[in-house]
Amino acid sequence: MTYDLYYWPGIQGRGEFVRLALEEAGAPYRDVARSDEAGGFEALHDLLAEDGPRPAFACPILRDGDLLIGQTAAILLHLGPRLDLAGEGAAQAIRTHQMQLTIADAVNEVHDTHHPIAVSLPYEEQKPEAARRAGAFRAERLPAFLGWFEHVLATNPAGPGQLVGRRLTYADLSLFQLVDGLRYAFPAATARVLAGTPHVAALHAAVARRPRVAAYLASERREPFNEHGIFRRYPELDG
Amino acid sequence: MTYDLYYWPGIQGRGEFVRLALEEAGAPYRDVARSDEAGGFEALHDLLAEDGPRPAFACPILRDGDLLIGQTAAILLHLGPRLDLAGEGAAQAIRTHQMQLTIADAVNEVHDTHHPIAVSLPYEEQKPEAARRAGAFRAERLPAFLGWFEHVLATNPAGPGQLVGRRLTYADLSLFQLVDGLRYAFPAATARVLAGTPHVAALHAAVARRPRVAAYLASERREPFNEHGIFRRYPELDG
Repeated sequence: MTYDLYYWPGIQGRGEFVRLALEEAGAPYRDVARSDEAGGFEALHDLLAEDGPRPAFACPILRDGDLLIGQTAAILLHLGPRLDLAGEGAAQAIRTHQMQLTIADAVNEVHDTHHPIAVSLPYEEQKPEAARRAGAFRAERLPAFLGWFEHVLATNPAGPGQLVGRRLTYADLSLFQLVDGLRYAFPAATARVLAGTPHVAALHAAVARRPRVAAYLASERREPFNEHGIFRRYPELDG
Repeated sequence: MTYDLYYWPGIQGRGEFVRLALEEAGAPYRDVARSDEAGGFEALHDLLAEDGPRPAFACPILRDGDLLIGQTAAILLHLGPRLDLAGEGAAQAIRTHQMQLTIADAVNEVHDTHHPIAVSLPYEEQKPEAARRAGAFRAERLPAFLGWFEHVLATNPAGPGQLVGRRLTYADLSLFQLVDGLRYAFPAATARVLAGTPHVAALHAAVARRPRVAAYLASERREPFNEHGIFRRYPELDG
């Protein structure tokens, strides 16, 4: 069973949360838009075209056999039990999903630090607004989100090494990605917050050391962060 | 089995998506912060306090027995099969959830039309930015979101009366709420878009006519829209 992942080439974007789950599990998948053999960018374009099937409002989209699933968190909800990344039992599965959705909220807010007015406008046309929004994000939202995840880790009855229960879930991989991106985009502000959220910092480091994740991060499959994705390093937005 | 819903009193907010599902199903629930008997606002405050259990980053939170679940979409994921509002089979359940997450994205964008800079600042301190963001929302995002849902309804093999399969799901109730809020917040812009998305308009009207939903909307339990919630009528943001 080979999964097909449809996502924009050239950025990590929201597709990266799906890639990390597939990579950690060692699951076979094709990154369609990056693979000529799988159809390349044209296959992605055809799926989303105005007169195409449009199975989702936006990428990422996962194909699992006949099933086409959109929305990052819905894809991970589907993959979770199949990749053994959804904890143990129904209560842990729903808790894992709650974590993922909170990470998604944080990711949306990161995106809007450089695009507070319109996704259709380049950053250069919304810089004063971006500076204001990024200031509020650094001062209020960044500590609030990472502070809450620190609380979740510190109060996990099974220990602070993972968000839910005693086993790695897709939410841990996603929290790694959120922290990794924040360290890229806001190195100074993130370092200050992580100094007060040691369990979050430790989880980020531990996930990066997992053999399959480490191999993936060192591979060409891991697109570097850049200024076209969600996490962008604009020094004027850090501080 | 009585559910407890924890959400801010005085607004519909994201709690409304949960209320609509519970009301349509006729499920017994207590709206804790509005009920002195259930503990009132203090019970909500204690749950989220800095030294409290903080089971979620934010409201709404649902208590189902020993389980406390945060995140609107995770709550609906949990309730879906219990209230018979998740379609038929696993493929429809995940499709229903994908729809819900896309509605949640639209709701976030609506919120940011009046709060493009910071949730901590009042609208009055971000009015020029709000005018810009609302303009882009009306011109690009509103037609994009409702246009995609129109496509989903028009191409549903079971008919355009519901988003997934042949039965009502929580995603239909949520799309009703999105459209209802858009009609309140942006009456002119929404009327223009709905003229081109007849299936979306028809779904909104059909949900409002369902006996339990109609009874709920006419009751005191339905908080009116106001300028403290997600959907706010600021005439200068419509057009």
